[in-house]
Parts: sequence; C-alpha cells; structure tokens
Amino acid sequence: MGLKLPKVPMDMKNWARCKRAGNLIFMGTTGPWPITNKTVEGKKRGAIGRELTVEEGRFTCKMCALSMLAALKNELGDLDKIDQIVKIEVYINSIGGESGPYIKVADAASDFFIELFGENGRATRTITPNFSDVSIELDMIVSVKD
Amino acid sequence: MGLKLPKVPMDMKNWARCKRAGNLIFMGTTGPWPITNKTVEGKKRGAIGRELTVEEGRFTCKMCALSMLAALKNELGDLDKIDQIVKIEVYINSIGGESGPYIKVADAASDFFIELFGENGRATRTITPNFSDVSIELDMIVSVKD
Amino acid sequence: MGLKLPKVPMDMKNWARCKRAGNLIFMGTTGPWPITNKTVEGKKRGAIGRELTVEEGRFTCKMCALSMLAALKNELGDLDKIDQIVKIEVYINSIGGESGPYIKVADAASDFFIELFGENGRATRTITPNFSDVSIELDMIVSVKD
Repeated sequence: MGLKLPKVPMDMKNWARCKRAGNLIFMGTTGPWPITNKTVEGKKRGAIGRELTVEEGRFTCKMCALSMLAALKNELGDLDKIDQIVKIEVYINSIGGESGPYIKVADAASDFFIELFGENGRATRTITPNFSDVSIELDMIVSVKD
Repeated sequence: MGLKLPKVPMDMKNWARCKRAGNLIFMGTTGPWPITNKTVEGKKRGAIGRELTVEEGRFTCKMCALSMLAALKNELGDLDKIDQIVKIEVYINSIGGESGPYIKVADAASDFFIELFGENGRATRTITPNFSDVSIELDMIVSVKD
Repeated sequence: MGLKLPKVPMDMKNWARCKRAGNLIFMGTTGPWPITNKTVEGKKRGAIGRELTVEEGRFTCKMCALSMLAALKNELGDLDKIDQIVKIEVYINSIGGESGPYIKVADAASDFFIELFGENGRATRTITPNFSDVSIELDMIVSVKD
C-alpha cells in the first residue's frame, strides 16, 4: 500500500498488541507512536478543546491508526491479509460538552481506513473517554482472509 | 415481533452501524433516535443524577435499544435471524458516586432484550462513562443463526 | 490449577456473566468479589491516587481477575478448557494525569493470567475510566478449545 509505517514495540512484557481467535484479530489500545518516537510533530498529551485543537486531535488520531497498521503488519506479514476493519474504538482525552469536535477527531481514523480498504475499511465505531492524560489512543478488531 | 421501530440513518459517511464477521455482528454506538427525531419526549443530553432522573435515563436507554434493533432490522431484513444478544455496552453520562442508579438505567436495555428474546437476550454487559454530553448511547455484539 | 476461587453470583436477573458465541466467550464486567464478600481486605471503592495507592489498586485488580476465573469455572466446569485470554478490559476509577500508575494496576491482572496460562494468557488490553466510584472492574474475552 506504499505506507511508511512507524516502529511500534511488539514485545511488551505484560500484554499483546494482537491476539487472533479464528478469523478475528483483537488488538490492544495503541497510542500515536510516530509522535511518541518524536519522528513527527504532534501532541501526545492533553485534552481536545484544551491542550489540543480539533486539527491536532485529528492528526494524532491518524498517527494512532498508522500505529495500528504497523502492529498488524508485524503480526500478519502483509496488510493484504486484512479482510475487514470490523471495529475501531477511539479513546479521547475529552472535556465533555458537545460531541461534534470529538466525532471530527475520530473521523480522521475512520476516513484513513476507508481510504486504504474501501467499504471493507468502513468500520463500526465507539468513542470512549481516556483514563489518563494521553490525548488519543486507538483500539481495533479486524477480520482476516481465510 | 410487532415492534414499532424508529428510523435510524444507515448511510454514514465515515463508519458503519453493523459489520458482520462470521456469525457475529459488531455494532457502533447508537443514540436514542426516537428522541433525536423528536418523535417522543426524552432527554438526549445531560448526566444521570443532574439533568436526568433515573427514570428519564431508563426511558432514554430503552430508546437506544430500540434504535439498535432498527439498525439490525435494516442489516438482517428480519430480527428473527438474531440468535443471541451477546453483549451490550451502555455509555452513560455519569457524575460518579454509587453505581446503583447507573445500573438501574442500564437494566432498562437489558430487560427489554430479555423481554424480546428470552434467555438468548440476557447479554453480558459493560457500563462506561460517555465522552460527551449525550446522556445515553448503546453498543452491541449479536450473533446470528447460520 | 490449585486456585482458591471466590464465590461469584451467576444468576443475575438482568444480564449474564458469560455468553458463548462459537469458540469465544464474552464476559460482563466483574468487580473484586473476594473484597465484596469481605473474605479479604481491600478497597472496593475510590480512585487510584486518591483513596487507593497503586499497590492497593493492584491487589484489587488481581481480585477482579480471580473473580473472572470463578465465573469461567462456573461456565466451563474446568478452566483447562480455556484456550487463550484474548482480551482484558480494565475499568479503573481514575483521577487522570500520567498513565504510569494505572498501567501498573492493570499489569496485576495481566501478569496473573500470564502466570497461569503462559503465552496464551498474554492478552490484548484496554484501560477505561470507571463510571462510578467502584475502584476496579474487569471485563474479558476468552477463547475455548474445540
């Protein structure tokens, strides 16, 4: 797909980035690794509407999506083995209020997957408040081809 | 089942209401569409214990459940194709404190599915705080018959 | 496995502790039942970093993991039928700030499952803020052997 994927650590002591059960791969929450690695600008910490503008949130959210693909590449060897992006769960450091700005942030990941996988990339979605000061994290379920 | 189902938009640009993988259907969070459409009274915004009483929360939660069934009807053609309600995830705009009132709110969806599907409707459940000022949203996993 | 499992109620009126779909078992959030039953010391209520130290949080989190296994024992008859711990979702009563302390709390459940099930117990993971004053709750997806 011609993507430049970030380096994402896969050898965590306590948990797994990907776990396959049948044709489903469940993933764990992943932050915006390109930002963490400081290979790109962006804000890893802070709330949307306070420390981050919606545009900064969208950029950060897309970096999370890219990190998810890096983890899947590591797991599958080839991203072409992905059948569908079944679900994305966007964790947003939120200050509450109207849902509009947060939906725009989450759309950045959704749109990215649709761009790459077409209708198979149009996933179901939840948005959840984050438990810490990390701005955005992403969690996913994907299905793989037989 | 003789249910009067609300009209729920199914053609979102960025995400899908339902995604099937094998015999499972993963869904995205859905709000209380009958209230959103102003076809019934109710409170779409505000926290349980502040803007909404527990009873208002229960009504809103049931409207979310009805919206979920409308989305599934659209996807499956016939709700009789549902095998089990596997899991419901209730997103509640919460002010913290004792869990009792929030559990009563979530029970409104749980009871509704048990009423419709019997033991197959008795789902596993999580309750999560909402990220915005929307009072209640619902997310689900259902299994379908072969 | 020689575990002393707590008594966890399985006959809830409104929801199910376990729901099987194919080879997956989806579970509902479970609190730290040994503490609830007052068979061990611990803090069922309060936030990490305010009412609970990280060590108290870790202990409580492990009690949640033990409660999950009790529910699975009840469902499966034998914990040896578990193939993989696919995912754990840790709900933490959080005061925000740095993610480090919360990760240490969640690690207590992750490490416990790795200790019991080896690499098959190394699950994917999410951490989510809790909706009420309950300190820790746990949710899980496991796969079972054919």
